[in-house]
Formats: sequence, structure tokens, C-alpha cells
Amino acid sequence: MTNSPSKLLDNAVYEFSKLPGIGKRTALRLVLHLLRKSEEEVNVFGQSMIDLRKNIKRCKICNNISDTDTCNICSSPSRDTTTVCVVENIKEVIAVENTAQFHGLYHVLGGLISPMDGIGPSDLDFDGLLHRIRAGGVREIILALSATPEGDTTNFYIYRKLGNLPVEITTLARGVAVGDELEYADEVTLGRSIMNRIKFEAT
Amino acid sequence: MTNSPSKLLDNAVYEFSKLPGIGKRTALRLVLHLLRKSEEEVNVFGQSMIDLRKNIKRCKICNNISDTDTCNICSSPSRDTTTVCVVENIKEVIAVENTAQFHGLYHVLGGLISPMDGIGPSDLDFDGLLHRIRAGGVREIILALSATPEGDTTNFYIYRKLGNLPVEITTLARGVAVGDELEYADEVTLGRSIMNRIKFEAT
Repeated sequence: MTNSPSKLLDNAVYEFSKLPGIGKRTALRLVLHLLRKSEEEVNVFGQSMIDLRKNIKRCKICNNISDTDTCNICSSPSRDTTTVCVVENIKEVIAVENTAQFHGLYHVLGGLISPMDGIGPSDLDFDGLLHRIRAGGVREIILALSATPEGDTTNFYIYRKLGNLPVEITTLARGVAVGDELEYADEVTLGRSIMNRIKFEAT
Repeated sequence: MTNSPSKLLDNAVYEFSKLPGIGKRTALRLVLHLLRKSEEEVNVFGQSMIDLRKNIKRCKICNNISDTDTCNICSSPSRDTTTVCVVENIKEVIAVENTAQFHGLYHVLGGLISPMDGIGPSDLDFDGLLHRIRAGGVREIILALSATPEGDTTNFYIYRKLGNLPVEITTLARGVAVGDELEYADEVTLGRSIMNRIKFEAT
């Protein structure tokens, strides 16, 4: 920052501005906001980030973020252990959990195959997934990845990897979103929703 | 956060979402970004905020944020000590400094009088300003506050406070911004710029 009166302020602004989507001006605004808080409150803020990074674990079964060695989903006795939903990251675990429509377990890949970003299969946790299926007990794998080229590539990679294992592979239904007006649905989605039409059931 | 797998994650997200303009979703994105960084990097991030809040000082002369008892502007031998620019906060100090048009000193009020927000004169540093003027040596006070009702109220308050002291009080010129097309200038600003017209000088 030009003409800054404080090195301490500069450091804090610089650290904030390294975060995605936060420019110098927003960073300064956030730091000045923190400066108006009590020392105790700012300690709690800073320490919560430090503690998170230091103490967070990866679930040794599904690779999801967890406070313990086994996450609360994998260790829950009420989940269906025969169905595993493969997702990109923890954000997608939270999204699927929020639907309350899925009662199986997850497998978090940690990303999608993306040659453009230099992310290959070895950077993601496919081995853990294979290991879980080979160990037995899994009947269905639900591929719940983004409908993007990277998601499609990753879907295909998993399909090839698991092809000869005795497990059913399913993927999310693609179609017109609930609440969408048909005239605004894009044609690829609309086409797919016609191809994969389902029997009408009056509810 | 519903269905979160981690209390540590929740805490960090909660702390971020207390910042202005940052909602739950953005907070989660920022925290997951930090989680991908090394422990060392996250320590630097958290510690920079804690250190800032703990060690930052207010300049005992101008009330600006400073690493030392006297800020680098007040302690600079090359500044004109007879002119004091009164500003709301450190952001305005930086803005005026960036123009490179002002070589005097500052006085940081720490806010503007705003009855709506419960900010009265006693919450701001008017006493320090009076003290500096009474100590002598100040010839001109430049009121560089926002052109808002709060700014106007504060200007008027200072004007009344300093009315009987031997000091010239000036304020920023209001007018059409450099680069603005006239047809889009608002009428109050355009009216003021006609009232306060200045002699044309060919440069």
C-alpha cells in the first residue's frame, strides 16, 4: 500500500488480499474493521484459523475434513454403508447432506482431473475409493461430480477404473431444475431431460 | 452451518462471516482456501491480525494509526507544521497522501458526528485538535470530510468550536470531478461548481 503509516497494517492487509476475491481495498476495509474490535475478539479470529489448519484431520475412510480420525458420517451407525457417493470436495458433501435425500457414505476425491490445471489422477484419492470397494460391502457408487468437462473426465476415469469390479455405478440425473421455466432451460439440458424422461407419478 | 463435519471448520467460518460484506458461503470458500495452504502460511495469516491489534498504536499528536508513539508523518522534518488537514479516518489520510498535493500534517477524528449511529462529539478526538491549535503554530485547518450530512454536521461543529481561535478554516473545493462529462454531473454539484467558479488559467 502506498503511503501507509504502519508496517503492521500493511502486513495484515497483504495477508487478507492473498485470499481469493479480496482486493487491496476490501482487505484494508476488513483490517480496519478488525482494528475496531477488542484485542480478545481479534485473538479469537486469528487463532480460529491457526487452530483449524493445525488440528484438522482427513477422515481415514472417506477423506472428508474431520475433527477426528473417522468423520461423523463414516462413524454413524445409522448410515447405509452399501452406497458410496463420490464427490469433489467437502462443499459438495455439505450440499448433498442438506438435501436430506442421501443416507449412504461419501468418498471425497479432493478435486477433479483437470490437465489444464495440472491435476492428474495421482493428485486425487482414487486409491482410497478402490480400496474401499475391494474390501467389499459396497453395492453402489453414485458419481456426484460437476456437469463440467473436468467432472465428465473424472467420471469416465472412475468408470474405467471400476469397470471390472462387482459394483453398480450410477450418476446424478441431469434435467430441468425444479422451479425453472422451460423456455429458459438450455437446449443440452432440455435434450437430456427428454432422453432420460421418467414415468409420471401423481403425488 | 448445517451438516458440518467439523467444529473447527465451523468456528473459522463463523469468525470470517462476522466481517462486513462476508456471508456464510464466502466465509466457507475463504476458509477452505486457507485449508489448502501450509500450516506455516496460515500461522502467518492469523498471527498478522493478532499482532496488528495487539501492537498498533495511535499517534499521540494526530491520532492516526502508527507503529510508533508518533506517526511517520508527524515526525517527518519535511512536513509543513502550520497546516492541519482534518480527516475522518486513516483511509482518508491514505487517499490525501496519494494525491501528493498536501505537505502539512493531519488530524484524525476517528469518525463523524452521526446521531443516527449514536456517535456524538465525545466519541471523536476534537479535544486533541483544540489542544494542537491552542499550543500555537497552526495557521490553517483544512476540513477534508465527506460531502454527506454527517460530514457537514461535523464541519459545522468544528467551525463553531474553533470560531474564536486565530486559525483560518478552509474546506475542500466541491465541483465537477476531473474527467466527468458535464451532462452527467448532478445538479447540486454543478450548481456549486458555478457558484465557486475560479479564474481560468491557460496551462
